[in-house]
Amino acid sequence: MNYYVMTLFPELIEKGMHTGVLYRAMEEKLLSLECFHIREYTVNRHKRVDDYTYGGGAGMLMACQPIYDCYRAVETRRRLRAWEQGRKEKPAHVIYMSPQGRVFTQSVAEELSREEELIFLCGHYEGIDERVLEEVVTDTISIGDYVLTGGELPALVVMDSISRLIPGVLNNDVSAETESFTDGLLEYPQYTRPEEWMGKKVPEVLLSGHHAKVEAWRLEQSLLRTKERRPDLYEKYLEERT
Amino acid sequence: MNYYVMTLFPELIEKGMHTGVLYRAMEEKLLSLECFHIREYTVNRHKRVDDYTYGGGAGMLMACQPIYDCYRAVETRRRLRAWEQGRKEKPAHVIYMSPQGRVFTQSVAEELSREEELIFLCGHYEGIDERVLEEVVTDTISIGDYVLTGGELPALVVMDSISRLIPGVLNNDVSAETESFTDGLLEYPQYTRPEEWMGKKVPEVLLSGHHAKVEAWRLEQSLLRTKERRPDLYEKYLEERT
Repeated sequence: MNYYVMTLFPELIEKGMHTGVLYRAMEEKLLSLECFHIREYTVNRHKRVDDYTYGGGAGMLMACQPIYDCYRAVETRRRLRAWEQGRKEKPAHVIYMSPQGRVFTQSVAEELSREEELIFLCGHYEGIDERVLEEVVTDTISIGDYVLTGGELPALVVMDSISRLIPGVLNNDVSAETESFTDGLLEYPQYTRPEEWMGKKVPEVLLSGHHAKVEAWRLEQSLLRTKERRPDLYEKYLEERT
Repeated sequence: MNYYVMTLFPELIEKGMHTGVLYRAMEEKLLSLECFHIREYTVNRHKRVDDYTYGGGAGMLMACQPIYDCYRAVETRRRLRAWEQGRKEKPAHVIYMSPQGRVFTQSVAEELSREEELIFLCGHYEGIDERVLEEVVTDTISIGDYVLTGGELPALVVMDSISRLIPGVLNNDVSAETESFTDGLLEYPQYTRPEEWMGKKVPEVLLSGHHAKVEAWRLEQSLLRTKERRPDLYEKYLEERT
């Protein structure tokens, strides 16, 4: 998986992706990341990338030209890499991070993890001129119904979530399969040593060594927890099973 | 607003909060951030913070002791600051970032932005021993229905979203009021100079200078966009108005 990120804060993207298991995955060439600094592509002599909004309104908007030229640089780079590797260039999948996009979920992460190249566009300030979005963006994704100061954290969230689904990135593939959402339920409570901590004991069944009983207990706990905390997910789970 | 973050990756948290407007807000003492490195509190001589899961299963779990002792260090620090500032210590609001929590939305951001101190606990690996969660956590928050490699990015997302609602953090308070979700609708398209770019013109009405017409056009666009992209939000908007 090759990620290309268009951003005003490349250091934040680099830092976010050089942490923990993702760092190891990049060392092992399972992932690659290239940041394109939008400010480097502006033709404005003061290096400005934003301007006032037509029709009035608070805050500044990112203008078309720097983003479009940055995008063309990404495309040139992609074409070069495809040529170097002797493969055909794929059509660009350009994701704009915005609260106005389709809602990101675990199944969207699974869908995107099957791609070979993804391009992210991170906005800042009040947003981006609509015309350049129409011109370059093929997919708009929201990580949730809240507003942030920029698209960098959302892009990191999406890349993190996708990356851990790529075979070899986590130590064990099992791990990605037995957690919240993979079966539509929240995860059961978990315990590690010591057996007793501050008067609290690990549930007996987990010490029993009886695999089937452990599994039954875990499913029961997942069901209870989902029903209590996320009745919406619980309903959906029941519906899919009837 | 004072943030305290318990994490295994303090540099990532620092970097994420030292970007753009949040950096300025910290310089101006509108926000403060203190990271507590969980690994510094383990009594294990190999500095380990994780261990195998009882009952079997892939991956490692974060153990109780390092997190509990880290939490006590946060509490000592909070007590000292309250004493220095001559005010009464507030009860701890400890947020655990987990897909099993209540779903984060703009209204949760508004609720949390009224607090004076927030403590974040970021998990890693397969999660955290349930017993220490019961002992220290008062609130569990999920930023969306997807799984990530750790709680750091979610904590940054929540802090970013809250911080921009604190008076003075954004250049203009108006800005936080006229965007996606504040009225339950997605934001309208926006345009900046030039008037024509690659044959695409800015909609006439935005150049008219007629404030009421601009507002009417924007509301219409917001409604259209929300109906098309997020029928769930559109339904809710209509319901609240009848």
